[in-house]
Amino acid sequence: MERTRLRNLGISIGTAPTGPLNAITDVPGVWVGHATVIHDEPRVARTGVTVIVPREGGIGRDYAFAGFHRFNGCGEMTGIHWLEETGLLTSAIALTNTHQIGMVHDALAEYSFTRSHYGAFYLPVVAETFDGWLNDLNALHLTKEHVFEAMSNARGGSVPEGNVGGGTGMICHDFKGGIGTSSRRVISKSGEYTVGALVQTNYGDREQLRIDGVPVGRKLGFDVVPSPWQTPPESSSIIIVVATDAPLLSDQCRRLAQRATTGLARVGGVGHNTSGDLFLAFATGHHIPAGADAPIPLGPMIPHQHLNPFFDATAEAVEEAILNALTSAETMVGYQGRTAYALPLDELQRVMDQYRLKKEM
Amino acid sequence: MERTRLRNLGISIGTAPTGPLNAITDVPGVWVGHATVIHDEPRVARTGVTVIVPREGGIGRDYAFAGFHRFNGCGEMTGIHWLEETGLLTSAIALTNTHQIGMVHDALAEYSFTRSHYGAFYLPVVAETFDGWLNDLNALHLTKEHVFEAMSNARGGSVPEGNVGGGTGMICHDFKGGIGTSSRRVISKSGEYTVGALVQTNYGDREQLRIDGVPVGRKLGFDVVPSPWQTPPESSSIIIVVATDAPLLSDQCRRLAQRATTGLARVGGVGHNTSGDLFLAFATGHHIPAGADAPIPLGPMIPHQHLNPFFDATAEAVEEAILNALTSAETMVGYQGRTAYALPLDELQRVMDQYRLKKEM
Amino acid sequence: MERTRLRNLGISIGTAPTGPLNAITDVPGVWVGHATVIHDEPRVARTGVTVIVPREGGIGRDYAFAGFHRFNGCGEMTGIHWLEETGLLTSAIALTNTHQIGMVHDALAEYSFTRSHYGAFYLPVVAETFDGWLNDLNALHLTKEHVFEAMSNARGGSVPEGNVGGGTGMICHDFKGGIGTSSRRVISKSGEYTVGALVQTNYGDREQLRIDGVPVGRKLGFDVVPSPWQTPPESSSIIIVVATDAPLLSDQCRRLAQRATTGLARVGGVGHNTSGDLFLAFATGHHIPAGADAPIPLGPMIPHQHLNPFFDATAEAVEEAILNALTSAETMVGYQGRTAYALPLDELQRVMDQYRLKKEM
Amino acid sequence: MERTRLRNLGISIGTAPTGPLNAITDVPGVWVGHATVIHDEPRVARTGVTVIVPREGGIGRDYAFAGFHRFNGCGEMTGIHWLEETGLLTSAIALTNTHQIGMVHDALAEYSFTRSHYGAFYLPVVAETFDGWLNDLNALHLTKEHVFEAMSNARGGSVPEGNVGGGTGMICHDFKGGIGTSSRRVISKSGEYTVGALVQTNYGDREQLRIDGVPVGRKLGFDVVPSPWQTPPESSSIIIVVATDAPLLSDQCRRLAQRATTGLARVGGVGHNTSGDLFLAFATGHHIPAGADAPIPLGPMIPHQHLNPFFDATAEAVEEAILNALTSAETMVGYQGRTAYALPLDELQRVMDQYRLKKEM
Repeated sequence: MERTRLRNLGISIGTAPTGPLNAITDVPGVWVGHATVIHDEPRVARTGVTVIVPREGGIGRDYAFAGFHRFNGCGEMTGIHWLEETGLLTSAIALTNTHQIGMVHDALAEYSFTRSHYGAFYLPVVAETFDGWLNDLNALHLTKEHVFEAMSNARGGSVPEGNVGGGTGMICHDFKGGIGTSSRRVISKSGEYTVGALVQTNYGDREQLRIDGVPVGRKLGFDVVPSPWQTPPESSSIIIVVATDAPLLSDQCRRLAQRATTGLARVGGVGHNTSGDLFLAFATGHHIPAGADAPIPLGPMIPHQHLNPFFDATAEAVEEAILNALTSAETMVGYQGRTAYALPLDELQRVMDQYRLKKEM
Repeated sequence: MERTRLRNLGISIGTAPTGPLNAITDVPGVWVGHATVIHDEPRVARTGVTVIVPREGGIGRDYAFAGFHRFNGCGEMTGIHWLEETGLLTSAIALTNTHQIGMVHDALAEYSFTRSHYGAFYLPVVAETFDGWLNDLNALHLTKEHVFEAMSNARGGSVPEGNVGGGTGMICHDFKGGIGTSSRRVISKSGEYTVGALVQTNYGDREQLRIDGVPVGRKLGFDVVPSPWQTPPESSSIIIVVATDAPLLSDQCRRLAQRATTGLARVGGVGHNTSGDLFLAFATGHHIPAGADAPIPLGPMIPHQHLNPFFDATAEAVEEAILNALTSAETMVGYQGRTAYALPLDELQRVMDQYRLKKEM
Repeated sequence: MERTRLRNLGISIGTAPTGPLNAITDVPGVWVGHATVIHDEPRVARTGVTVIVPREGGIGRDYAFAGFHRFNGCGEMTGIHWLEETGLLTSAIALTNTHQIGMVHDALAEYSFTRSHYGAFYLPVVAETFDGWLNDLNALHLTKEHVFEAMSNARGGSVPEGNVGGGTGMICHDFKGGIGTSSRRVISKSGEYTVGALVQTNYGDREQLRIDGVPVGRKLGFDVVPSPWQTPPESSSIIIVVATDAPLLSDQCRRLAQRATTGLARVGGVGHNTSGDLFLAFATGHHIPAGADAPIPLGPMIPHQHLNPFFDATAEAVEEAILNALTSAETMVGYQGRTAYALPLDELQRVMDQYRLKKEM
Repeated sequence: MERTRLRNLGISIGTAPTGPLNAITDVPGVWVGHATVIHDEPRVARTGVTVIVPREGGIGRDYAFAGFHRFNGCGEMTGIHWLEETGLLTSAIALTNTHQIGMVHDALAEYSFTRSHYGAFYLPVVAETFDGWLNDLNALHLTKEHVFEAMSNARGGSVPEGNVGGGTGMICHDFKGGIGTSSRRVISKSGEYTVGALVQTNYGDREQLRIDGVPVGRKLGFDVVPSPWQTPPESSSIIIVVATDAPLLSDQCRRLAQRATTGLARVGGVGHNTSGDLFLAFATGHHIPAGADAPIPLGPMIPHQHLNPFFDATAEAVEEAILNALTSAETMVGYQGRTAYALPLDELQRVMDQYRLKKEM
């Protein structure tokens, strides 16, 4: 069965409607770009970089309120001291592998310095997960040109998922993981908005995988992949980025970031020790010009008591984004001949049908 | 069908074994005491106080490492500034209603000052949830004698659940909630220990209730209770206390407290705006004598990389403790004639059976 | 020499101009009220409660952005979970003694529930320091009527300092302390505003006391008070409240609260172990109506890059507020005949003159 | 007058004795290494990297408890998510310039991977301040060989201060700043230990500079340097690292890190908006082997109530370390011909003497 998104399998998460693309790019002005590096010679590369670019790039000139939540800290996300100090996102966001986060950080800053449209990314946000099981990590395959490429590729529209960009070599619940995205329309007392999530999934045990509540991980026998089932010795990390066009303030963004935990927990994430589960949410509804010389006009604030639909939407979008990564990613053979198997969709359907028959009764 | 605990319905959560009582009191030295106030005259009382007493009371002489996590802050838990500063729990813990948290705070301190065995609770931990839908809250029914009574009642052994103590008037996922507890045995590379959870549940919407992944809240028709189904206008709060006898340090306790989010999320908690979702974990394995005059011998530390079974156990115990509150609590008529209906167990069984039949195939 | 404020001694702190009263009440709409309890029979009382009431009382209807900083946590300040979750102050603020913080908490809430003008203080902010050296603390002298009295007393205008309200029995740098206040005019690129501070001082060692940089504590001999100089065995706490009429957001308030550390450090505070050094800042420039049913219009935001004058003003106002408490408080004889001596102003002048002569050269 | 350390000018800070070298290297096993890059062609370089290497390098095999405090977040320090999650320092610490923090991060990790003695620095701690006023920052002068060089240079003994390593191009209170260090002996009820501090100073305004309480910044006329006095348009940052050999736990380290604020405030730091004031403290007294397979024996814990001498020592060592940077750094001409003038020591003596004469009376 061909790899596809979760909803094409007849499975949907939650009750809120998705945006037109069911992707973080449904949030107006949010772009995504990937650079993917896959080759076997001279050393095995299964890696890349993914960028999330708010405001069609101009985030370094026109800041956005943002918030951060650390569910588990075995990972790196740079730029958070300043983001937490001011409540503002001031750069694009890059996701990559563990050993080149520094290079990507410097390259992302450098990229901005030469493009006045973008403003300057002085303290850019760069996060990582570990792809060293499928990727020969110490070969340091990525160069700053890959970062520039991802930035140049960034655009709205559909977002490639699975084995792309920063997610290329990632593994999730012992199946092949990678990049996933989803979105929700939010109908609140303060108006209609979009919440989108993009995840780089590299965490979790097979036994704990649940899809729409169904314990798929336990119901799928080990025989769904050729034995023996090799997997990395340790579960690893998940980076979650949540975006909205609502005019949220920083505290409200932080609240959204923290709700990402809920979506992750429903799929089966527990924040294991070696997992870097770092979540960032930003909201483009307010505009904070860099270097303003006078008080900055702000539009209306959404009252905290209107946020519940945003919280529910965040949980749903994160849950579905993770599952989109799983259903989109393809089986990959990598470093030292290791194979990470894709979640078998026909077996998944079989398990879900057992439950769905009953659900529809 | 008689009210009972979840496992008596043939439903169990997760894979780890429970302790002998499946209660927080499986952690050696942890006591629980309730004082429950129910009467209709002169004003309607449906309230109380529950205490969790570590170290058979002596926590004010012999501190325990502890950690705190705020999932959502619309509530009060006192004593946290000192707990976070030092990483130590130095008092018993009391759970009560919103409007008398101050009285309970002062009474808990006062109680300790007159009992040298306990040590002094200078900055006691007291938390609250809002029972004003069933309880005439402004009547301030509780007195410090109720706090003393709960402390005197505190003991090991089985823990009354449902409409007792601080949980007396609480509502959960639009059904009658209250106090629940559960425990897990943890088999780690650093030895065997117990993790227990006690919850005071007063949060959540019916539609989001899931039991072992099954969307019970959506599958149960509204006709399972006499119409119209009155419920409080706002979802409210959950207080979660996690205890273990493992020699965890403060950071490790905080990590456990944060994992309580996972168990809550699986049941359907999203941390809605008006919810005070405050979690505390403590570990009795180390002993920190109050006022020590010399360096304090510490036993061995459990390495962080051995904590995953503790994390999983916390998630499972919290999930089951919430469900025990729901299946144990009885329908209650209270303030202004309002009725909070118990989760109907036969209907629950019917829904679960639809899924379980398939699960066992 | 009569007790007086610091500036009347010819000593001033920093370079920014003060407001007309050099008090937190220079911030428009900020009121202060005290209730002071001093008597010797039947048991020795040297205690009280001080309230800070933003928006002429209406803070429970019209919230203000606010932020919190814990410099050292050996103390209690309630209401912070909600304040940090939303970035909003939703109640008046009360300062009192350690053993009756609970009573004051409940009384402050109760007071608001019966006065619709105020809105409801559901999760009020109440903080404490320990006056048990001069006050027979376990006599629990305060009743809720004292809280109501302090609230009724609250008004703008000059603020009594020293041995009043919550500061009645407090001790600072081994001299008699208590309540102090100060303010600064802030001239920023975003306009002119006021920053005010009110402190309840009960911390510090004599040796570390500095006034405008001069090591007064070391230069004042022990012979400035009748020997032997009795002092409490442990240094204790300081509560600092910072107010401004600027339209700061919550992150900006937190930044102000954290800068209070600077003013405290200049006087000689180090955050000793048993000190509850808890700081809160609020800003009345934005208005967040409770229970708004639609998006809330916000005025302009002050850019973070315009905040330095606010930071400097906070540091100066806090430094001077502490010193005003010291120069205003009078020698007090209390519990068990203990005497806390006032900072001797003529000796202070003598020491300062040694330095000032040179400063003016 | 020749550049020298503060004490050689007859000025000392506080009352606790220093260690033999009055440097962070007085803490046994703590090494410091610098790589300094100064040249004018082809582009002006005034930059470098400084490393602090705990446990004679082996920190990646044998972790140390550690804590972090953010006084102001306009800067980067990597590795903090994991440090805060576990309370452990697991790598050497590098200080460098803003635009090459990423390269230094990756190089520090790479260095460790090839030296088994060190263990692996998976999530290394790297911090930065901005040297772009004297250094042509965009030339990216540093290479990973410079990081390797600093690591190879790392040793105990005296620590070069001023214009060296990461501090090469830094400016402090409008004078030439850079690297400074100091230490204190701590005599506590739990035994004798050493606390050391190392700072990379690049913050502050001239007017706010105080030395031992004396307002030197205001007393030094502008004519102490050739006019006009050019300075960077914005104050910038300070990184503070505190080390001790005491067996502190993570919460206790965090408390030390937070006390660094006190030392900074005494010199005149207020945490201005564009300042990255990030503080880290670590304690080598406990040993946490990486990848332990069994519970880890811990030595005795120092009770929190014995920490005050550590707090005072931290404040003093930080204050003096900053001043050592100022008195050691030499006037530097750099990028675009700009000059950063050294604090003139004879003028400093003159101002201090005005006050000291009186102090000794």
